[in-house]
Amino acid sequence: MTGGEDLRPTDHTGLRVMGIDECLERVARIQVGRLAFPLDGEITVLPVAHTVDGVDICFRTTGDSKLQAAVDHDHVAYEVDWFDEGSRRGWSVLVQGTAVLVDDPAEVRRLDTMARRPWVPQHEVASTWVRVRTQNITGRELV
Amino acid sequence: MTGGEDLRPTDHTGLRVMGIDECLERVARIQVGRLAFPLDGEITVLPVAHTVDGVDICFRTTGDSKLQAAVDHDHVAYEVDWFDEGSRRGWSVLVQGTAVLVDDPAEVRRLDTMARRPWVPQHEVASTWVRVRTQNITGRELV
Repeated sequence: MTGGEDLRPTDHTGLRVMGIDECLERVARIQVGRLAFPLDGEITVLPVAHTVDGVDICFRTTGDSKLQAAVDHDHVAYEVDWFDEGSRRGWSVLVQGTAVLVDDPAEVRRLDTMARRPWVPQHEVASTWVRVRTQNITGRELV
Repeated sequence: MTGGEDLRPTDHTGLRVMGIDECLERVARIQVGRLAFPLDGEITVLPVAHTVDGVDICFRTTGDSKLQAAVDHDHVAYEVDWFDEGSRRGWSVLVQGTAVLVDDPAEVRRLDTMARRPWVPQHEVASTWVRVRTQNITGRELV
């Protein structure tokens, strides 16, 4: 075994498989990801600005949002990626879990403190937090 | 009615609703989007490099890929977005439809000609085309 060799596994298409800690660190670097959830027999995918809390993904939504349909419902997925068209480098992380509304005031205050400023101005004044309780995280990187 | 006024509708969170032609034009500008589909009782979301063909989204996949599970299966969704953290501008487009394998050799040749170079090198030598037959397109822009 020579020094400096990359022993991390690759999948069948040659993409490097990332570990859980690396996946979470990459997700925390990026502001926006996408929540995918079942709605009326279809899959809906909507971008949100996230905050990583432990292994969970948290985001704000307004009370009347479509995103509310994801809460206490079926399983959801959250995807974050980064691709650079110039260098053709990139990676993606997929989180699978269930979405729950955060209703504990202390937890809401803690998330408000951790979070970046919302992208949708309405989320600053009238929003609730949703937590994706992570059950599975996978990530791949183009090598 | 004054000149230069933007009469395009906004949704309940103040995001501008984009028309279908504008959605397709935006999707064509970007190389990578994400396919969301049901797999083993969960939702899987994987990035792919797409080609816009009329109102449909087409992409390459290898024969043994997870993405094959999306074909001839339940409804799928395809999401493309662009966000700029500096200016806090951005937009997203959601396509909903069904995924089918492209097996007509003439159609495969036409897509090969239209497509950009694949991001995953294996897709250049051993890949098949998948078409998302679009049933619904929606798009929103931060204003």
